Formats: sequence, structure tokens, C-alpha cells
Amino acid sequence: MKKILTAFLSCAAVIAAAQPKPSGNLVQYVKPIIGTQRMGHVFPGATVPFGMVQLSPETDTPSYELNGKYNPDVYKYCAGYQYDDKTIVGFSHTHFSGTGHSDLGDFLIMPTVGPVQLNPGTADKPGSGYRSAFSHANEVSAANYYKVKLDASNIIAEMTTSTRVGFHQYTFPKSDNAHIILDLMAGIYNYPDKNVWTYLRMVDDSTVVGYRSTNGWARTRTLYFAMTFNKPFIQMGYKKFDKREVYGGFWGKFARVKNFPELAGRQLKTFFDFKTEEGEKIKIKFALSPVSIDGALNNMKAEIPGWDFDKVKNDGQAQWEAELHKIVIEGSKDEKEDFYTSMYHAMINPTIYMDVDGQYKGLDQNIHKAEGFTNYTTFSLWDTHRALHPLFNIIDPKRNSDMVQSMMAHFDQSPEHMLPIWSNSANENWCMSGYHSVSVIADAVVKGNAPFDANKALDACVATARHRDYEGIGYYMDLGYIPDEKNGNSVSSTQEYAYDDFCIAQMAKKLNRMDVYEEFNKRAQNWKNVYDPKTGFMHPKMADGTFRKNFDPFTTINQGFIEGNAWNYTLYVPHDPAGLIKMMGGNKRFITYVDSLFSYNLPDKYFAETEDITKDGIIGNYVHGNEPSHHVAYLYDWTDKPWKAQEKIRMILPRMYKPTPDGLGGNDDTGQMSAWYIFSSLGFYPVAPATDQYAIGSPAVQHAVVQVGDGKTFTINVKNQSDKNVYIQKITLNGQPHPGMFLSHSDIMNGGEITFVMGSKHK
Amino acid sequence: MKKILTAFLSCAAVIAAAQPKPSGNLVQYVKPIIGTQRMGHVFPGATVPFGMVQLSPETDTPSYELNGKYNPDVYKYCAGYQYDDKTIVGFSHTHFSGTGHSDLGDFLIMPTVGPVQLNPGTADKPGSGYRSAFSHANEVSAANYYKVKLDASNIIAEMTTSTRVGFHQYTFPKSDNAHIILDLMAGIYNYPDKNVWTYLRMVDDSTVVGYRSTNGWARTRTLYFAMTFNKPFIQMGYKKFDKREVYGGFWGKFARVKNFPELAGRQLKTFFDFKTEEGEKIKIKFALSPVSIDGALNNMKAEIPGWDFDKVKNDGQAQWEAELHKIVIEGSKDEKEDFYTSMYHAMINPTIYMDVDGQYKGLDQNIHKAEGFTNYTTFSLWDTHRALHPLFNIIDPKRNSDMVQSMMAHFDQSPEHMLPIWSNSANENWCMSGYHSVSVIADAVVKGNAPFDANKALDACVATARHRDYEGIGYYMDLGYIPDEKNGNSVSSTQEYAYDDFCIAQMAKKLNRMDVYEEFNKRAQNWKNVYDPKTGFMHPKMADGTFRKNFDPFTTINQGFIEGNAWNYTLYVPHDPAGLIKMMGGNKRFITYVDSLFSYNLPDKYFAETEDITKDGIIGNYVHGNEPSHHVAYLYDWTDKPWKAQEKIRMILPRMYKPTPDGLGGNDDTGQMSAWYIFSSLGFYPVAPATDQYAIGSPAVQHAVVQVGDGKTFTINVKNQSDKNVYIQKITLNGQPHPGMFLSHSDIMNGGEITFVMGSKHK
Repeated sequence: MKKILTAFLSCAAVIAAAQPKPSGNLVQYVKPIIGTQRMGHVFPGATVPFGMVQLSPETDTPSYELNGKYNPDVYKYCAGYQYDDKTIVGFSHTHFSGTGHSDLGDFLIMPTVGPVQLNPGTADKPGSGYRSAFSHANEVSAANYYKVKLDASNIIAEMTTSTRVGFHQYTFPKSDNAHIILDLMAGIYNYPDKNVWTYLRMVDDSTVVGYRSTNGWARTRTLYFAMTFNKPFIQMGYKKFDKREVYGGFWGKFARVKNFPELAGRQLKTFFDFKTEEGEKIKIKFALSPVSIDGALNNMKAEIPGWDFDKVKNDGQAQWEAELHKIVIEGSKDEKEDFYTSMYHAMINPTIYMDVDGQYKGLDQNIHKAEGFTNYTTFSLWDTHRALHPLFNIIDPKRNSDMVQSMMAHFDQSPEHMLPIWSNSANENWCMSGYHSVSVIADAVVKGNAPFDANKALDACVATARHRDYEGIGYYMDLGYIPDEKNGNSVSSTQEYAYDDFCIAQMAKKLNRMDVYEEFNKRAQNWKNVYDPKTGFMHPKMADGTFRKNFDPFTTINQGFIEGNAWNYTLYVPHDPAGLIKMMGGNKRFITYVDSLFSYNLPDKYFAETEDITKDGIIGNYVHGNEPSHHVAYLYDWTDKPWKAQEKIRMILPRMYKPTPDGLGGNDDTGQMSAWYIFSSLGFYPVAPATDQYAIGSPAVQHAVVQVGDGKTFTINVKNQSDKNVYIQKITLNGQPHPGMFLSHSDIMNGGEITFVMGSKHK
Repeated sequence: MKKILTAFLSCAAVIAAAQPKPSGNLVQYVKPIIGTQRMGHVFPGATVPFGMVQLSPETDTPSYELNGKYNPDVYKYCAGYQYDDKTIVGFSHTHFSGTGHSDLGDFLIMPTVGPVQLNPGTADKPGSGYRSAFSHANEVSAANYYKVKLDASNIIAEMTTSTRVGFHQYTFPKSDNAHIILDLMAGIYNYPDKNVWTYLRMVDDSTVVGYRSTNGWARTRTLYFAMTFNKPFIQMGYKKFDKREVYGGFWGKFARVKNFPELAGRQLKTFFDFKTEEGEKIKIKFALSPVSIDGALNNMKAEIPGWDFDKVKNDGQAQWEAELHKIVIEGSKDEKEDFYTSMYHAMINPTIYMDVDGQYKGLDQNIHKAEGFTNYTTFSLWDTHRALHPLFNIIDPKRNSDMVQSMMAHFDQSPEHMLPIWSNSANENWCMSGYHSVSVIADAVVKGNAPFDANKALDACVATARHRDYEGIGYYMDLGYIPDEKNGNSVSSTQEYAYDDFCIAQMAKKLNRMDVYEEFNKRAQNWKNVYDPKTGFMHPKMADGTFRKNFDPFTTINQGFIEGNAWNYTLYVPHDPAGLIKMMGGNKRFITYVDSLFSYNLPDKYFAETEDITKDGIIGNYVHGNEPSHHVAYLYDWTDKPWKAQEKIRMILPRMYKPTPDGLGGNDDTGQMSAWYIFSSLGFYPVAPATDQYAIGSPAVQHAVVQVGDGKTFTINVKNQSDKNVYIQKITLNGQPHPGMFLSHSDIMNGGEITFVMGSKHK
């Protein structure tokens, strides 16, 4: 009954979204261009919520190597697009959103006129290849819609998507020499051997299918496609850039140089010739599948049977409306653009990774069928366990439990028998530290959002956490910490494991698995083992129990921490702030410590070491652009000066999030940065997922209504809101004064109303 | 009803085979070692009839390149084994039988003791690698069983198979340092980029699974495997030989150098460590699948659930007994060895290409399920349409019709929309000339063995034959021949197309598709267009209708013919010998011409040009080692001197087929050479498949009983048989004098008895 109800509600939400809401159109506030300048690593192109396709322009895809060495420019192009660039190379179908590592960029398409050019050329030499100059004045970037004029050809490029299909619409000038290039060599984070194999087959004169196998960040990955034009191409040509053509001679059997119905090789580019009238639209449907060519064809047929571009665009935008309407805020246009673009960025990843028939490829390289859940990939869990999944547990619990089930399937298929660390297209890339899947799973279980076998999920968590062979866990289990000699992230990993173990303990308690609770509750204290009372920091500890002598709490290099220095990471005990405060000398000393974090003037030499963020991502020594400090401002709630939390949060919000191309202070990290914004704007934050507790900050919205399921709403009223009135004077919950600085999950999910009265002076 | 009956009979045959037959054990006469010396290109290892697995030793697998150039030694190793070699490199699971091109050699396994060596080393330096010396004295090569002692380690290697699973049994000496090497880099016809990708996953401490993707003769091919040991390995190690290790760093997450549960890369070798007692047997089951890892595991489970080596060996040999018993002959031991080894070689290819559940990968790169038939690959049709498929139409019609259905599935999945030319593992390699699938299909239809949609099959034949773009067909259709300027095989292709068109016409006639009949019966005359009455040869003809001036009827190079010279190819009009004789000047001149073919003393310079065969494969200018002349000796039946056919055939038989390692005069050509032997030994031959006619030669057996289905037998009695009594004096069929030198298909299939009375003088 529950399942049926959920499905019904889900449909109802879509239907409701298709009708105008009193709150009006929210998609208008989504500006995908926000964060495309500098290090946001987001893309401006088209996608639907959690879509498999992210159809977006590449302004460059630098080679991984430059003069035989790693090319640092590659990092800028994680999402393929840099706002300051003047040219577009083409439009590809897969993009990470806000990651700190790159891959994808599959199946680059570019429309051109004139002689066929199969190299993109360089940005500094117009006409040197198929790339084109463009201008932001001729560019529209919206939810599920991207449009740009290509100056080289006067072609208007438009694109939209369904979950598994990209839809291109190119308005051509009159030309006897019009082309669509399909570059199977192009890709993001390309290096010479990244393409393992590509294959293309012509089904008829308007459809080709194939696949691309790559050895990228996803080590062993194949993505299948089906591509259909709205009119027959005159002919298809190709060029093979492989060094070796051992079997190329077989083509000699055929009296042709074009229209080979089957092509295969490591390095292939193809093009399709057309004649176009002035203003003629060449449309392309481009479907993906992780399973098979037939899977891609089925996805296309199921999702976009016709050729109505506007319908596809509108359907996708209606999906966005439905998602955005889950939180309706009042605020200025800028605030709404920040908020709804954050909502948008929060709902791109994880991505759906299965065909319409439920089939997907697993980590075991077998094809599986998702029974009773939607399968997802692109889990950047070191980032997203903090606030993104907790956000889903409020506004989209069904989807979050599907993600948990995807993680459990990952566990079942994992050759290492571990839950995901960072999963990408049925691959584990082991990126970053901790085993934070357990936080996501425990958060769902503790919050009662577990329509899955929770005991089995606990077993998977325990197996992962006991994987002695993985990144120091054996030492951690034996010694209570990871010795500095044994691991470069010995301190931060010890801290993260301790938090994750707390999550397992909470989940075990909820499931009445008290033996597991005891074991992991004990492990959850292990952060204490790396605190050095002499220095007052979490500090690298040697195998012999002594703390390391050579130590700099400001540097992130070789100090036992990952993406953070000791000063920041020392505060990373999200599950026991009270214990941490006591350990660090009590309320007053702790406040001084956190204050100094924000006020410290970090010398440039340290900034240069800080990964993933622009200088704007740092406030003093507080690094918002990296995640380990995301909870830090809220720690004041555990002191006698919670107003300091309010002050800091209202300082961070406008500095780190602006409705401009350079508006993100660092990688969006597949939505975690955005989720922080959403929670913090609403006035509360999940400092320790896997508890039911939220710490109160300072709401930045004027008013908000959050859909919490079953038709219930949680309304946030903010009185006397202004940029200066950042301090909470009074809180009432459902009309009753609300004591303390915490909310429980049920306070929110039961529905109701919270009212914040704000003022310019702290209480 | 018919289908049920067929299935019942098929079971009955297996059951019957398991019981001793009056005719005794025939497997004893199978000597797979025959033809392993020089150019037979057969393998000595284990396989069941038409099995997917051919588990056999490699004595070498030379690199495709030597000093940057093609290495001609590669050709010798098409089947991986050369009798004269002194060392064995290992045992791999897939081998072509008798082909003129190479590929396969997947998943090489080698047992060793002592320090692990992952390079095979060279034959001239014992101990330089994992290869081992061996001696033929310590080698047993039988149907579905191969055994050899590896001198380097004193390991006794034994192997047997089921259809989809190889079963290894290695008897070790006592060793604390015993290993099984699994070399994923090894392969036949290897060149540096042949491995596209390899993947291996450890399921548990005794099972690993994975796949190998290659760009070989099959351009785009993936073969999956599952490998299980009979006892846990102590550990698994590996070495990656890739130049690039971009993502190798991820393994740094794990505190281990062995036992990685997942490995992937282009160039991988692995090894498994054991401790062994004296005489301990390490057994390995190694299953293949063209579909998936799960497919391989399922195949293993279904075919070899246990560990009983002898049972698997006996079951496979019982399958061979059942096949061999389809023709029970009397003769000397040598004759039986020749005959039953020919039967064996005739029943290795085509190979089964689907999992136990009927799934297989198609040419369209999708997974298909074979409904109502068994799917086959390895169709070397330029060779096998001549006698091998006609043989199957007599002794194994169900299997032959399954092969036809496999060819029709190939057509449906073919990107070119063509029937197979030479299909290999869901790939078309376009090897050799003609479109001889149509001969196989038409032969089945004309002979009434068509439990498939014959009209659909005819449509596929017609579509293939009208594929204007393919190897001169457009010219052929427009001009009635292929101009010399347009194609290197212009003459032989014209002749072969003409024969194939005759086949289509016969099939169309049978199906009452008279429009098709008219069109293709006309095309069947096209051979006449390339006959030059001035030279008396089939002769390259220019687009302007003149015959080429520069012409040498003895050379095979650049004369318009493939694998044959004009002298031989001129006789290639299998569907109209009478018309050919007339064209060539009548009975007497024709006899002189054919006589001279056998008696001509071909100068060495021409021999050097002749592909695929040893010098023993040539008699005068008659090239038995290549197929275009296989029907030639029988052409005397259309003259007034059929005794010359008898004389020539009895001369060819013992010269081209001997029960010794060097006993084959050329590549066995996936069974065509053997099928010629079988037919010719029995006394008749299908000169023109797609007719119901067999030309009578001179039986070499003393007596034979052929199972022709439904429990019926066709018995061949030979009276006064001897090496000298090669001339037929009298023929009676079912007790009645049989006039003429031809038999019809129904003469055979109705069952009955033919009696040849032989003598030393021709009549």
C-alpha cells in the first residue's frame, strides 16, 4: 500500500508541476551558468533531474599530457566548459557536475558548414578546425535548455534532454555543404590511450548506433549510443586516426570511401553530410545506455518517440519545476537565483544509471536488472554524505532510498566487497577518504527512510568498515588510529572512520544489533587518539604512540590530512562536538580557536597548496571550498555563543554563493556545496548525519515552504529579515517557543511552522 | 511432430554411442596429431564435436612483427602448434582448425614450479621463461584428450573438454613453489595492439572470471571466461605490461601486492600460487562465453558440475563415438586412421557460438537468443561449401540446418546486410571470394533439409548477390563479368559468382520463385564471358570487352584469380561441366587439358607463389591443397573416360592424406580437405552442391555403412578392393545394375546398398 501511495504521489507531483503553481515559475531562477567561471566545475548545458544525459558544450578538452607531462590545465575543464573561453568545440552528452576530477565528455557533436574539418583546431586560430567562436550575448543557459550561436557557421545550436536522450536542434544557413561531426575521439580528461575501443554501425540513412569503451577515471567503462537524425544524411564519412590499420584492407572489398555501415577502432571520427535550406533545422536524438546498443534504441523510443523539441524541453522543465517546488522561498531575485540554482545543482548527481527496462551494468561487469528501485551512479560520497543525502531524506526520501539500494547493489557486485567510496559508471575509483556510504545509509535508517533490508545494509556497512586491507583500517582497528608512517592521511582518515563508525553504531542501535553497536560505538571514540593536548591539534601519531615532531598546522601537504590542514580538521568530530570542546579546553578556548579560524590571515604559500578552490573559497583559514569544514560554523551551537554561528553563516553565504558565472567559491562537488547553501539559507544544517538532529544557523530566506511528503509542509517564517538582521532573537515552533539551537528530524517531517524573529544584535 | 522426433533421435544417438557398438571403438583411430607438421594448421589438443573450446598446446606464438615488418613465421602457427618444435609455451582455449589465417589462442595457461616467470622465454634458451621442453614420446593426442609431460617441471599436463568448458589436470611434483600462470597477453597472431582490453575479477580463493577483448582477425571481439581451481590458491599475483599506468596508483589504497580482486588493462599476466604434494593434481575448469561472465559461470555449472576428469573425457569421447559411427568403414589401420581423423577434422568447425541458455553475441554487437536452433560461427565458406556442408546434409542434416539458420541470423545482424563470407566470433572478415553461403543454403533447400523459412533464406541470398558495392558485383551485374581493371580476382570472382548464382536459381526453382530463377539462371551463365577461346583459358577481361594481353596461365599472381592459376580455375564451372567441355573444344581436347594438369611439371618459380600448401599439396599443376580444383578429378565423369577420374582420385588420396604428423598436403581448411577425403574414400563427391547429384569416383574403403537418418543406412560394398584395383568394373544399386557415373541424393538418403566391383584395368 505504501509503495502504491508513493507512486501515486510521485505522479501527482509531476501533474501538479505541469500546472501553474501559485508560486509561479521557478525554473526561471535556475542559472546553470553560475559557477562556470573558474573552479565551479559545473556545466551550462541541458539535463533533467538526475539525468543520465548531460548535454553541454565543451569550450576545450585539453590533452592530459603537455610535452610529456601532466597538463595542469586539464583540471579547469572537469565539466568541459570555461566561461572565459571564446570558442566552443562541440556538444557532448556526459558531464560531471562540480567534481574535483574529470572523465566523460562522450560523443562530441559539432555542426559545421563548408569543407569538412575533423580536428577541432585551436582557440587562438579561428578556422583552424571545426571549433567555432561564440559570444555569451548569443547564449542561453537554462534548466534543460541550452542555446548558442556558432559564429563560424551562423548555426544556431539548441539542446534539451530527457533522462537518457539528448535532443539537438541545429538551425542551419543555406548550404550544400552542411555537416554534423560525431567525434568519437573527443573526451574530457583525454590521454592518448584513454579510448579503449569505439564502434559505430549504420542502421539506416538516418540512424547510427555504437559504443565507446574508455579507460578513464572509470577504469573499465563502455557507453552505448543510438543517434537518429530527423532527415536522411546524404552520406557518412570517417577518418581513422589509429596508428595501425592492420585490417583496414578489408574495406578494399567495397567500392566506396564513405557510408561504411560499420566502423571500429581506437580513434575514429565520423561526419554526416547534408544539404540545408536557409533556416532549416537538423535535429538529432542521441540516446545513451550503459547496457547495449539495443538498450540505447529502446531508451530513445521510450523517452522521445517524436521530433517535438519544445515538448521535450517543456517536459524536462516540468520535471525541474516539480523538484524546485519542493522548497518554495521568498526573497530577492538574486536570492532566488542562488537558491534555485543551488537546488538545480543539488539535483544533477547522483545520476540515473539504468535503461528504461531497469537493466544496468554492475561493477562485476555483468548486466543486472534493478528490481524495485532506480539504479544510480556518480556517488561522490566524501562530499555528499554531509548535506546532500540528508537534504534528499527530507525532500526526496524515495529517491534517497533508491540511492541506498544502488549502493547496496554496488556492494554486492564489488570485487572488493565494499560499499562505494566514489562510484562512476559501474566503477570504483577509490577517490578521497573514509567509508562514507555508511553515513548515507545510517542517516536513512535512523530517519526512518529505509524501505530496504536494513539489516543487510548494516552488514554491508560493517563489512566495509572491517576491511582491514583498505587504507589503514587494519591499523585503525588494532591501534585505534592509523600511524603516520603507514598512510598519508593518517589523521583525517582516523577522524573520518571514527565518524563513520558512529554512524554504524547509531544504525545498529536502531536495529537493535547491540553487539555491532558496542563495537562501533567504541571505534567512534578513536578521534581522541589523534588529538595532541600539547599542540592542541589533531596531530600525526607514530606507530610507537608518540606524536610526530615535524608539524605545521597550516599546511595541507604531508601532515596526515587530505584536503584540509590540521587547523580545520581538528574541528572534524561532527558526531561529538561536546566531547571535542571538552578535549580542546572547554567553551572559551574552543570559541577562540574557531574565531581565529575565520580571522586568520593565511599566508599565500598555504593558499597555493589548497586544492579545488579559488582564493574566494577561503575565509581566513576557513576553507569553505573543501568539505571538512562545512559543519564548523555550526559548532558554535554547542558553546555559549550560538550567535557566532549565525554571524559566520550569514557572512559565508553571500561570499561563497553569488548569482554570477564566478559565483561559486570552489567545485560544487556534485551538489554538496549547493546542499550546504540550501540548508543554511533555510536556517539549519545536519552537522552529524545519522542523528536526527539539525543545528540551527541563521535563515537567509524571507520565507520558505518545504514539501516534506504525504502532502505535509514545513514552513519557515522569518521576521525582520535583512542583511544586517542576522541574529536570531526568538524561535517559535508551531506557535510554541522553541528552546535551544537544535531541531529534530521529526520537527521537520511532521510538518508545521517555525518562525524566526531576527535582529541586528545578538542575544 | 517432426521436431520432436528429431530431438528423440538425437538423444538416442548419444545413448547408443555410450554403449559399445558392434563396430567397436572408433575414437582410437582419431589421431589429431596428423597434419600438425608443416602446413596442416590443425591442433593436437582436446575438443568435442563443434565445441566452443579447443584446448590445445602452443609450441610458439610468434609476434606478428619482426624488426618492424610482418613476420612470415606467424603463418606456420595458425593453430599454435608445430610438430617439429621442442618446447611448449602453454595451453590455450581457442584454436582454428586448418585455417589459412590466424587468430584466437585465448587464455593461455601454464603450470610451473620454482620462481615465477611471466615471460615465455625462447625455445633456444631452456629456462629463459615459463615454457618447457617436451618430447613426443611423452605426448598423447586423442579425440578430446591431450597429455604431455613438461620436462622443465616434471608436471604431467592433461586436458579434456565439454562444449564450452576446458578441463585441465596437472599432476605436480612436491613443491612449495607451484604455480598456474594465466597469461592474458598471449594469443595467436598477436601484434602489439591486438589486446584491446582484458579484465579479471576474483570471485573467491578458487575462482576468477573476466574477459579478453581483441582486435584481431575478428575485428571487434570479446570472449568471457570463468576459471575454477579444485583447491584454493594461496595467493594470486599479477604483472601489468602496459606502458601507461595512469590509474595504477589507486591500488595504493590497499596494503597488498597480491590478491587484488579486480585487475584490468591491455597487457596483464597473472599467476596463482600453490603448495603441492608429490603427485598432487591441480585441476582447472575453464569455461568460455561469447556473452558475459555470468554466461561463462552458467556454462561451467551446466556442463561440468563436478571434478571428475575421466568422466568429462569419456563423455566427450562418447560424443565423438556417436559422430564417428555415422560412417563405419572397413579398411586397414592406416586407412581407418586417415578416415576417422578426417571425420574428426570435419567435425570441429563450424563451432558452437552460444551459451547453454541460447544467448550469443551477434554481428550487430547485441546479445541475441537463438530460438529453435544452435548458433554457430567459424564459417570458412569459400572452403566448406564444396564438400563439408554437403557431407553434413547426409550425416548430420539437423546440424547443417542449424548452421544455415546461424547464417541467416548473421544476415539479419550484418551491418552490410549480407550473408557470411568468413564469419569468426560475431565478426565478418571478408576473407576470400564469392558469396558461397548461398551454395550451403541452396544445397540444404534443394536436398529437402530446410526446417527454416526457405523463402526468407532465398531473399537473403538474393540480397547478398545483388550487393552491387561488394567486390565487383555491380560490374558483374551490369557487364556479365568483372573487368580486370576493377578487381584483382576479376576472373575467379566472375566464375564463383556464376556458380553461386546457379545455386540461387536452383533454390528459387524449388521454391517456385520463377522471377528469381530467371534472373539468376541467366547470371549463372556469366562464366562464359571470361572464357577466351583464343587462349583456351578463363582470361582476365578488360572493361572494353577485350581480353588482357599480358597473361600467364601458370602464375597465381596478378592474373585475375585467387588461390589458383588460370589453368586450374578454367575448370571451375562446377554447375555446368558439360557446357564447359563444349566451350573448351569437346571431349577429347578437354581430357587432354585435364590430363596435362596432373602431369605438368610446374617450375619451382610458380610453386613459390602457391599459397597455403606444402609442395606435397601439388600434383603436377593440380593444386589439391587449395580448393578450386577439388572437383576437377571428377570432371572426367562428364567425358567418355570416367576411369581417369578413378585413377586420379586413387592417386590423390594416398598422396595427400597420410596417417602421420606431416600427413596433410595443406591447410585442412576447417574440414573441407577432410570432407573431400571422406567423400572420395566412399566413392562419390558433390561436384555441384545445390544439385542432388554426386559424381562417382573410386571408393578407397573396403566397406562402409553410412547412417542417413531415421535409422536408415546406406551401405557401400567394395569387391576386389586393393591399391591396384582402382577401376570400377561394375556398380549395382540395391541389387540392380547402376548405369552412369552419378548418384542422386535420394539414392543415398533412401538407404540401401551400393556395390562396386573393382579391377586393375579400366573398362
